[in-house]
Amino acid sequence: MLDNNNVIPLYHQLKQILREKVESGEWRPNDMIPSEAQLARQYGVSRATTRRAVDDLTREGLFYRQHGKGTFVSPPNIVQGLSRFYSFSRDMENKGLRPRSKVLHLHEGKADPKVRKALRLEEGATVYELRRLRLAGDEPIILETSWLPAELFPGLIAKDLESQRLYDLMEKVYGVRPVNAEEYFEPICVDEYESQMLGVPIGAPALLLHRMTFDEKERPVEVCKSIVRGDKCRYYVRLP
Amino acid sequence: MLDNNNVIPLYHQLKQILREKVESGEWRPNDMIPSEAQLARQYGVSRATTRRAVDDLTREGLFYRQHGKGTFVSPPNIVQGLSRFYSFSRDMENKGLRPRSKVLHLHEGKADPKVRKALRLEEGATVYELRRLRLAGDEPIILETSWLPAELFPGLIAKDLESQRLYDLMEKVYGVRPVNAEEYFEPICVDEYESQMLGVPIGAPALLLHRMTFDEKERPVEVCKSIVRGDKCRYYVRLP
Repeated sequence: MLDNNNVIPLYHQLKQILREKVESGEWRPNDMIPSEAQLARQYGVSRATTRRAVDDLTREGLFYRQHGKGTFVSPPNIVQGLSRFYSFSRDMENKGLRPRSKVLHLHEGKADPKVRKALRLEEGATVYELRRLRLAGDEPIILETSWLPAELFPGLIAKDLESQRLYDLMEKVYGVRPVNAEEYFEPICVDEYESQMLGVPIGAPALLLHRMTFDEKERPVEVCKSIVRGDKCRYYVRLP
Repeated sequence: MLDNNNVIPLYHQLKQILREKVESGEWRPNDMIPSEAQLARQYGVSRATTRRAVDDLTREGLFYRQHGKGTFVSPPNIVQGLSRFYSFSRDMENKGLRPRSKVLHLHEGKADPKVRKALRLEEGATVYELRRLRLAGDEPIILETSWLPAELFPGLIAKDLESQRLYDLMEKVYGVRPVNAEEYFEPICVDEYESQMLGVPIGAPALLLHRMTFDEKERPVEVCKSIVRGDKCRYYVRLP
């Protein structure tokens, strides 16, 4: 199993093996994994090597710890397909999860140059800045900030954005139908603020996602920046 | 600019502002950024706040430090589109970069159950395991491990995989044309081994990318796991 003569360090080989236990389904969500002592015996490595592998995978979110009980396999990730336009809420509902949003901040102000340019607005134009925490049930998943042109959505500031979906509101109240988007992805490590909001340790891996949303006339109707928890979501794409 | 009454902490607001300096082009690649003392004066915040914002962005790769000189803006990211099948080498060449590969490890052995299942091989089938460091010029970008069915690529072990592209070899020598792929993305923080290979600090953000590659007959011809440096690459997708 583990190869002492390999250039790959033992803890890294062990991580691979433990990851496969989960991915192959041999270890199921919420199963308790063997103790560090047991793993060390089983794979013929030191406790330090075992601890390091398990610590790494816990930080990545593959495992979670319960104080005084042990280390367990995390429930599976939310898989987000990238083949078509998607809405967080609608996709969560389709997966049988319970999407919720908490509005952290909503205000109207002058657009900064970058947002203004992206939204193709005149100088001095105002935008709504909407920061939301997106949850699945009670679990925070995404910390999201949207910028929306005020001229397209007059009165948005007074709307209830926790009990109705933003994209539904855009369409039903304002006749603006978001139909496609461009997204950029990059990995980041969350800072203290983001860690508090998302309920993960400082430095935990996350995806920084920039989205530009367009309506049927290819008019930009939203700029959005999301911090997506790396231990909860993975993204899938098919490349033809 | 910075808002003391905002619930968002000042260092987090400052990060946003500095990021926009780079994204808007006001600060250009390899420009030296103002010192911490200058930034603290300019934005009316403490040196500690400034240091924290700059440290975070340096860890993310937006800035780099030169000892005794100062902090500079990193060159722009490599943007990888996700609209069609791509090859690292071909894409890098198209971007005018100089792709190189260093073979770290190549051996033939029994496939483990997960790889075997993904490649739809019989029990006991052998695969090649190929670990490569992919570079742009002299800079490591991706740490990549591919598994290939031995029956499709007899004698691969003796091939020179540093001076010719794997996908070219598959096609020209073995008549196997990789034409499409499925990819899964998730963010991770690199461990010590990955950090040494990629030349980034331990804990730096990276993308873990799982690829399954198929030929024209929809036959799986490669399983691949890549660790992509987060400070060098971003991914782009259009969602219709």
